[in-house]
Amino acid sequence: MTGTSPGFLAVQDPPVWEATIVSFLQRHIEEAHAKGVVVGVSGGLDSAVVAALAVRALGSDRVVPIMLPAPDSNPQDAEHARLSCKALGLEPHMHSIGPVVAGLEQTLAEPMALPSQGKGNGKGAAKGRGPGAHGSTLDGRVRGNAKARARMLILYAEAQRRDFLVCGTGNKSELLTGYFTKWGDGGVDVQPIGDLYKTQVRDLARHLGVPKPIIDKPPSAGLYAGQTDEGDLGLTYAQLDSVLKGMELNLSADVIARKTKLDRALVDKVEGMVRKTEHKRRMPLIPKIGARTVGIDWRRSVQWH
Amino acid sequence: MTGTSPGFLAVQDPPVWEATIVSFLQRHIEEAHAKGVVVGVSGGLDSAVVAALAVRALGSDRVVPIMLPAPDSNPQDAEHARLSCKALGLEPHMHSIGPVVAGLEQTLAEPMALPSQGKGNGKGAAKGRGPGAHGSTLDGRVRGNAKARARMLILYAEAQRRDFLVCGTGNKSELLTGYFTKWGDGGVDVQPIGDLYKTQVRDLARHLGVPKPIIDKPPSAGLYAGQTDEGDLGLTYAQLDSVLKGMELNLSADVIARKTKLDRALVDKVEGMVRKTEHKRRMPLIPKIGARTVGIDWRRSVQWH
Repeated sequence: MTGTSPGFLAVQDPPVWEATIVSFLQRHIEEAHAKGVVVGVSGGLDSAVVAALAVRALGSDRVVPIMLPAPDSNPQDAEHARLSCKALGLEPHMHSIGPVVAGLEQTLAEPMALPSQGKGNGKGAAKGRGPGAHGSTLDGRVRGNAKARARMLILYAEAQRRDFLVCGTGNKSELLTGYFTKWGDGGVDVQPIGDLYKTQVRDLARHLGVPKPIIDKPPSAGLYAGQTDEGDLGLTYAQLDSVLKGMELNLSADVIARKTKLDRALVDKVEGMVRKTEHKRRMPLIPKIGARTVGIDWRRSVQWH
Repeated sequence: MTGTSPGFLAVQDPPVWEATIVSFLQRHIEEAHAKGVVVGVSGGLDSAVVAALAVRALGSDRVVPIMLPAPDSNPQDAEHARLSCKALGLEPHMHSIGPVVAGLEQTLAEPMALPSQGKGNGKGAAKGRGPGAHGSTLDGRVRGNAKARARMLILYAEAQRRDFLVCGTGNKSELLTGYFTKWGDGGVDVQPIGDLYKTQVRDLARHLGVPKPIIDKPPSAGLYAGQTDEGDLGLTYAQLDSVLKGMELNLSADVIARKTKLDRALVDKVEGMVRKTEHKRRMPLIPKIGARTVGIDWRRSVQWH
């Protein structure tokens, strides 16, 4: 059952993870006075697991799965998203991110600098071409992040009109390596599987009965045809998670390399990814001026209502 | 000079604030290996002050001010935005958020639930009406948040293609009361004036030579005609900041009411706003499972590169 998890993970107990996350979701939704959660379902493993946990926590009436395809998304992902919902008795909603990204491209393609002696009617940028009247003006990296942020916009609009929260699908491997978009898929209200490595998420998926084709396919962010996370990262999730777990246990790079039988260079690469992406795991920095400062030492109440 | 700040603020020293924030920005941009900052300039006080501080910190070549009007924005705001840039020798860029919000409305207006036995070609939501073919489908609250998030999308696209950071304009009064949009104007890389109350920002604006019409006008989020922050909040910034400063100093509600000469009910209202919006000042919650958890007890390196 747990054959894919790195050998020295401390706890390998999917039923315990399930119970922890289910009661966390129940408590959190109740304390936030929310009526339920929306979950963006991609057809991948993480969102299938999160939807399954949310249904166990809240019941199927209080979980709204939303498919958010791009015009160039792999059709197989949509099939898998429907499959994961069907297994839970959920009817997925669907909103293409195409029009939002097209709107962004349209406004970015407008003339960039305005004469400072302009008429000041505030309408200079409102004129213009319709979306789709030109090719993409965004490079691949900018466009990928814009797609993730467009999904956030749609999920929050759908959540807010129902008094729901937005439930994230980030796992510990992604969060630690910064393999997500700041304020995109990282912009959510809760991260139920944020303390489970990808290999643990797969173990949990088996325990929860997620459909097999979703468990077995190679993880992909779906940003271009044939993309796989492991190709992007340059190592397998089993390798990545072993290194991250070693870091979690405060082992030195040398000890991690020896235990994982990986090149020291790969271990250093992972440690570098964690270091360089710290800003993605923090709220925006504020320089300290007052006696007590937001995010630093201002009293934090746990009572929201 | 400091007549608008609440009487018992501990430090009222705009030159010290300026020096603190300028060196913070210099250090932070350098450590992040960024080339500069983009700032969304609204025509209001906060963004005028942030742009002025950024220029002092980085020089005008490394600060890109971006006007992000909505089709229904007050034209006077655009004039004030240009005025604030002109005073700094900056040429503002401009991108309407109209097409992004229209794209969101278009995709949300598509049929919500799909037959689960659909063809699975992933294109179901790509068909459809063009933006503007129907009225707004979003209620005012959802639409206001969507506008703030659309601005975030544009600012990050403009920042990323230049290797710049996104510089926020949130002040301490807004951050503490939750008077901002989660992952919208709250979704930035740094918050230079995040530890200055609104009344302190006004004092700093005078010190920095921000044009007088911008200092003198009533603060407004610009979400509808005639809106003022103080009308929304139900109390003046001088009153609000007095209460918040009392909380900062850990004074009881009774003592704050006595010192500020405000009704105890108003003090309680402000304390309630701070309590209920705590989630907006935190990263998404993660239930703890492993030995060390992101955002809880995972080692935080300050070295990003």
